[in-house]
Amino acid sequence: MEFIVQKFGGTSVGSIERIQHVADLVIEEHERGHGIVAVVSAMGHSTDELVSLAAGITDQPSKREMDMLLTTGEQISISLLTMALQAKGYAAISLTGWQAGITTESVHGSARITDINTKRIQSYLQKGTIVVVAGFQGLSAEQEITTLGRGGSDTTAVALAAALKAKKCDIYTDVTGVYTTDPRVVKDAYKLDEISYDEMLELANLGAGVLHPRAVEFAKNHNVILEVRSSMKHENGTIVRGECNMEQQSIVKGIAFEDNITRVTIKGLHQGKLSTIFSILASAHINVDIIIQSITNEGTVHLSFSIHSNDLKETLAVLEENREAMHYESVEYENHLAKVSIVGSGMVSNPGVAAQMFSTLQEENIHIKMVSTSEIKVSVVIDRLNLVKGVEALHESFMAKIEPLVSVN
Amino acid sequence: MEFIVQKFGGTSVGSIERIQHVADLVIEEHERGHGIVAVVSAMGHSTDELVSLAAGITDQPSKREMDMLLTTGEQISISLLTMALQAKGYAAISLTGWQAGITTESVHGSARITDINTKRIQSYLQKGTIVVVAGFQGLSAEQEITTLGRGGSDTTAVALAAALKAKKCDIYTDVTGVYTTDPRVVKDAYKLDEISYDEMLELANLGAGVLHPRAVEFAKNHNVILEVRSSMKHENGTIVRGECNMEQQSIVKGIAFEDNITRVTIKGLHQGKLSTIFSILASAHINVDIIIQSITNEGTVHLSFSIHSNDLKETLAVLEENREAMHYESVEYENHLAKVSIVGSGMVSNPGVAAQMFSTLQEENIHIKMVSTSEIKVSVVIDRLNLVKGVEALHESFMAKIEPLVSVN
Repeated sequence: MEFIVQKFGGTSVGSIERIQHVADLVIEEHERGHGIVAVVSAMGHSTDELVSLAAGITDQPSKREMDMLLTTGEQISISLLTMALQAKGYAAISLTGWQAGITTESVHGSARITDINTKRIQSYLQKGTIVVVAGFQGLSAEQEITTLGRGGSDTTAVALAAALKAKKCDIYTDVTGVYTTDPRVVKDAYKLDEISYDEMLELANLGAGVLHPRAVEFAKNHNVILEVRSSMKHENGTIVRGECNMEQQSIVKGIAFEDNITRVTIKGLHQGKLSTIFSILASAHINVDIIIQSITNEGTVHLSFSIHSNDLKETLAVLEENREAMHYESVEYENHLAKVSIVGSGMVSNPGVAAQMFSTLQEENIHIKMVSTSEIKVSVVIDRLNLVKGVEALHESFMAKIEPLVSVN
Repeated sequence: MEFIVQKFGGTSVGSIERIQHVADLVIEEHERGHGIVAVVSAMGHSTDELVSLAAGITDQPSKREMDMLLTTGEQISISLLTMALQAKGYAAISLTGWQAGITTESVHGSARITDINTKRIQSYLQKGTIVVVAGFQGLSAEQEITTLGRGGSDTTAVALAAALKAKKCDIYTDVTGVYTTDPRVVKDAYKLDEISYDEMLELANLGAGVLHPRAVEFAKNHNVILEVRSSMKHENGTIVRGECNMEQQSIVKGIAFEDNITRVTIKGLHQGKLSTIFSILASAHINVDIIIQSITNEGTVHLSFSIHSNDLKETLAVLEENREAMHYESVEYENHLAKVSIVGSGMVSNPGVAAQMFSTLQEENIHIKMVSTSEIKVSVVIDRLNLVKGVEALHESFMAKIEPLVSVN
């Protein structure tokens, strides 16, 4: 028997009606002869409600007790989904994280899965029972209930799929798949049939937001085939896997973008102080993205880096505080910027992609303020006012060559 | 170090404010140098809310999935109470039923505790950590989450007190203790200082409702001293134990009563058919209370028994259906009756108690329709209209001899 792991997020199980609908999706796949493990998140806003209960008690709840509290959310979902499956006449059983054999690190709030003992799950699957597992949670070696942190249910699903050697892992969300870019911004954006793990990672990190990077990383490491699809609309989603079918695929897979970027420039820096600066910023939890340095005639360095605009105040404070240790001349910054990235594995063997990106932007009179490249991504920082125009032009230039894919069934 | 187990019911932890108050009660006892295990129920109406979620899915949820669902209620309470204790500066930890080492039968919905491994709890207590345990729940040998059924949190608390050889087990409720009778009906009713397990059992079964009979039974078998007390008012409650201080104690400890009683009489029955009748009624889940039989001149039997009036329709139907097997002449019934019971261990050595009860009722012109006696209880069935008058007269006759106890602090 082939197994399929299906993951349903909070919105998908947000009400009694939705849970009934999810039960139908599970049954449909079960009727195709697959052994089904359904991983579910907490219902809709129930996690927020639990968090606000805790906030009523204290503004500094211990992570251990928060895990104890929050894991009830998924426990409620799994029991309700299982009741729905049973009421529709199917054998089903719910399992908490620890009952499902999920062992994690001894960390609260963001533990990593260290092992999955699938014996209990397998025994139910062999009998044809649908297994409903609580996402986001596990058990440490000390018999403590732990949670996996943000995107935890995705990780649970992918890890179970890996451990069970499942045929694939379906991630049901409130979007129909992975799009070439945000369809709310670019009307020609279309859903991709396939995307590679690395491309998905770049898109996810850049804010596509449908699949947690940790889960994609896990899927990549264990070669688990994912499908991102809608729990509302009945159509094929986007397959995420290692090697994609290159036919009819463009070099660029997607265009990601991000608003609220600020560029900070430190002038007259001594070369040796670079690591000092970034360690200090890291310990202040300031996320630095693109970094550029240029050497001046005087032998000192001009250093520019991009940050989220929300971190500007903190960044300037940290730089001022550590002025002596860093030994620089001056600090400047530019607000109201945006970052646009084109992502695609095809770039590796197509060196003209970056050039095409720059010329496309140039034709629109968009000035490029920073550039960063990786094997499968080129990112540029531009003026925020040019963001939509830039993304539309890039989508037209890179993505419009192929026919928009028509959804099947 | 001496241990105290404290049990807080749903009303006591019904809101954030109440949980903060419960934390203070726990801390107060902890500050007296005791090792504290606090057992808590689900918050206020949260169990009802979970039940109605399940009802939205199906009207026949499996007991196993109901246990999975309902046990989240206590898990939420224990985490919140623990956060409150920590926020007030005390070391505390929450434990689910299975983490607390509570093993039960492999039954869902009403499992009995079979074993408690206190190793984990003891290790925390030794370090001075307050342990907060989820009531009502345990784990079966098959690693299934189970619940203990009605009054389950009381049972958890008493069982933990027995396993830990605790000094006592405090049951915090929304009443200040055990009363001589219902103070809403008899204004002279007063709180008892002490009561024996057996007296408490008779009173609890008769509807005093502050402590579950199963928990009292458990306390009796393991000699656990209980105190029923209020989580709202700061005063001594009622101690429940094996041997009570007899000084200043009356023979009768309390007067319990129950409304909505119906007497059913089966006439012309063959002696040998008695067991048939009660097996058939039992299998129809009809609870029969007082049973009286009288032998007629014809050698047949007249059988009378009391039931709750709600069961009358079902009882008559069952008797009619099985008329042939039971082989009786006719069935009669009388509605609108009530039962009054006087309870007290002192009766055993005071044979005049029943006589005093009858004469007291006679003086009020109350006709006694049925009588039943046990070693520590005399029950009579009377007309419902005479209930309040009867209870008041009995309270005056048996209970008013001693000074009403004044609450301390």
